[in-house]
Amino acid sequence: MRLSQYFLPTLKENPTEAQIVSHRLMLRAGMIRQSAAGIYTWLPMGLRVLRNIERIVREEMDRAGAQEVLMPTIQSADLWRESGRYDAYGKEMLRIVDRHDREMLYGPTNEELITQIFRDNVRTYRELPRTLYQIQLKFRDEVRPRFGVMRGREFLMKDAYSFDVDYESAKKSYETMFNVYFKTFKRLGVTAIPMRADSGAIGGDLSHEFHILAETGESGVFYDVAYDDLMARDQVDLETVSKLYAATDEKHDPNHPDAPPPDRIRTARGIEVGQVFYLGTKYSKAMNLVLPGPDGAEIVPEMGCYGIGVSRLVGAIIEARHDDKGIQWPESIAPFQVGLINLKAGDAAVDAACEDLYAKLPSCLYDDRDERAGVKFADMDLIGLPWQVVIGPKGVAAGIVELKSRATGEKQELSVESALARLNS
Amino acid sequence: MRLSQYFLPTLKENPTEAQIVSHRLMLRAGMIRQSAAGIYTWLPMGLRVLRNIERIVREEMDRAGAQEVLMPTIQSADLWRESGRYDAYGKEMLRIVDRHDREMLYGPTNEELITQIFRDNVRTYRELPRTLYQIQLKFRDEVRPRFGVMRGREFLMKDAYSFDVDYESAKKSYETMFNVYFKTFKRLGVTAIPMRADSGAIGGDLSHEFHILAETGESGVFYDVAYDDLMARDQVDLETVSKLYAATDEKHDPNHPDAPPPDRIRTARGIEVGQVFYLGTKYSKAMNLVLPGPDGAEIVPEMGCYGIGVSRLVGAIIEARHDDKGIQWPESIAPFQVGLINLKAGDAAVDAACEDLYAKLPSCLYDDRDERAGVKFADMDLIGLPWQVVIGPKGVAAGIVELKSRATGEKQELSVESALARLNS
Repeated sequence: MRLSQYFLPTLKENPTEAQIVSHRLMLRAGMIRQSAAGIYTWLPMGLRVLRNIERIVREEMDRAGAQEVLMPTIQSADLWRESGRYDAYGKEMLRIVDRHDREMLYGPTNEELITQIFRDNVRTYRELPRTLYQIQLKFRDEVRPRFGVMRGREFLMKDAYSFDVDYESAKKSYETMFNVYFKTFKRLGVTAIPMRADSGAIGGDLSHEFHILAETGESGVFYDVAYDDLMARDQVDLETVSKLYAATDEKHDPNHPDAPPPDRIRTARGIEVGQVFYLGTKYSKAMNLVLPGPDGAEIVPEMGCYGIGVSRLVGAIIEARHDDKGIQWPESIAPFQVGLINLKAGDAAVDAACEDLYAKLPSCLYDDRDERAGVKFADMDLIGLPWQVVIGPKGVAAGIVELKSRATGEKQELSVESALARLNS
Repeated sequence: MRLSQYFLPTLKENPTEAQIVSHRLMLRAGMIRQSAAGIYTWLPMGLRVLRNIERIVREEMDRAGAQEVLMPTIQSADLWRESGRYDAYGKEMLRIVDRHDREMLYGPTNEELITQIFRDNVRTYRELPRTLYQIQLKFRDEVRPRFGVMRGREFLMKDAYSFDVDYESAKKSYETMFNVYFKTFKRLGVTAIPMRADSGAIGGDLSHEFHILAETGESGVFYDVAYDDLMARDQVDLETVSKLYAATDEKHDPNHPDAPPPDRIRTARGIEVGQVFYLGTKYSKAMNLVLPGPDGAEIVPEMGCYGIGVSRLVGAIIEARHDDKGIQWPESIAPFQVGLINLKAGDAAVDAACEDLYAKLPSCLYDDRDERAGVKFADMDLIGLPWQVVIGPKGVAAGIVELKSRATGEKQELSVESALARLNS
């Protein structure tokens, strides 16, 4: 993509409405624009990142055997009356009356609808275990939407639901999703520590929140230093994690029997980006989801639900990966892998060298604008592509380009061939 | 995908609520389920088709230089007051009041929002021409939703908007989109005839509706027989099309100066799946989108809008491509390319032959169920994958499989190698 053609309205100044760094950077880097309180349009650069995150989440869900569906955003209030949540949900639920005076709502979550689909379409326990998921817009009418996409009202979420014949099987489904989350966050280039979470009125100890560590995190988190090693692994199992203490400030209790001594506790800030939750039969029972079981007797499936805040992750990853110049995208979700800077647009030799390289880089944003070098450097650092290639008259004469890593700042002078080999490897 | 593991609740009987064939087949083939009037959940098989259509639409838009954004579904009523459409739109607009008593709405279309984004983020005519698009949910509160996804309330639509400095440039943008539509529908495996459409209060002759021909189409259409040749071409230009008569029953006038003699008119039924529309300055003027122009004087950009009904297309393509046994998917959007039927699940040799082939087919739905052959044949015809491979004990003994084309019904006995060569070519 040529920057001269790209719809990328970057801002030089910090927008006053943005209180946290990810919100500031997403506005400045031309990724999003607010259209109403807590409601955003994703511009091309932001949408690329959002789609990359979505793709990784989808790939890991599919790999684990979950199957994708797409539920509608607008749901019937009657459905939510079956579970008792229509009255219980409160003002965060966006309630709607349609032209025929039917009460509807914009789904803040989908336990009711997925349970209905299961109830209407599954005939035997033999179809279990089954995990269905979707990546779909949700709406929660936050009283004070803020922090950009981190706490918006309309947001994109992956929500998954598992159905099992009994608790043992449900626990396996939970473990599978736990592993999926660990792998997913690793691929997204961030550390997300699973914390034991409140499982509320349902009881049981099967609920974890995944928190990305970031200075600007909304929650204080406290965790065993052993996590540092654990999170570096390629895979962890639920049992190992369950032995280690980790809690958000709401749950933290230094006197808890599992809490390690103070010198083995790390204190940090965290952003919740995912939650896995064993639901038991709360919804299946309330909504009369009953199936003939193995021995002819009826069973009430055990459910679990598993959320990842897809749009929130864009902000959370920026909170974890930025410096004072801008964003530092992990390669896995970068909108482009390479930013190519032409130091002298209009100079025939430099233009030719840039065009040549541009044609050979499959994921490149080429700054071909007639702008000062300083502006180009600043914009490129701001948008945070993993690699920058700088080409100017001197380099062209000497047959070299400068390759810079955005994350480390490390610069190298290389032949065009070596740079290409490095970038396309 | 193994059918035994797949969430595919097919129905043997025709659902009574479905009045047209695509709705019946989408329900029977386990593609969708209704969750409220005119509101559907896409099950895994249906979602695959929807995503395939979305992908082709996106590829053709990107290839033409349009850039993708994602606008929110919930918009502010104030924005629609700027254009005067908030009061004008009527009951099809789903109006919402949020917790702070602000008037909001679920976007039925997005001219206002895109114009606002342009107004706030574009500073000079030099950024024109520009075409932005999104593939996003819309909601229109139809008084009588029916025909499944063909006339639903919540639906997926591609909507694009072009901005140009003057009429000549706007006409070029229109032509570009016209060509995109021709290519897109061709790739989707259907004939969609562009018909001159009413451009309403805006005036001018620049509006075309694209209609897929299908017996169950909602509109009568009348067109010059010359279209038969024209639609077979790889590309057509707007000028050629503009010389040929084509009109829906609402617009048809046999005495129109452009109308050919009766023996050169074809009469058919059509389903509208896309529309291209020159808007002029209707929205840019109303919403005060003004830019410094080439000679320093201000310009008011000329706009166009371009819609494709992505979810509607799933139904429309089925209307055009089915027989009495079920759907006949074009390869370009088929949920899987091949359906593999194991005639004797449990027979070691047949199982082994099926497993071997399954492993070598990248896009295959393998019917490994313990069901009668008749059930498997019927289900496979119903879901309509382009190719069927049938493997039974006799074939295994003779080293052959049966390959059937769903569209033509043609069957061939082939060696496994020949079948693979054919399917993976």
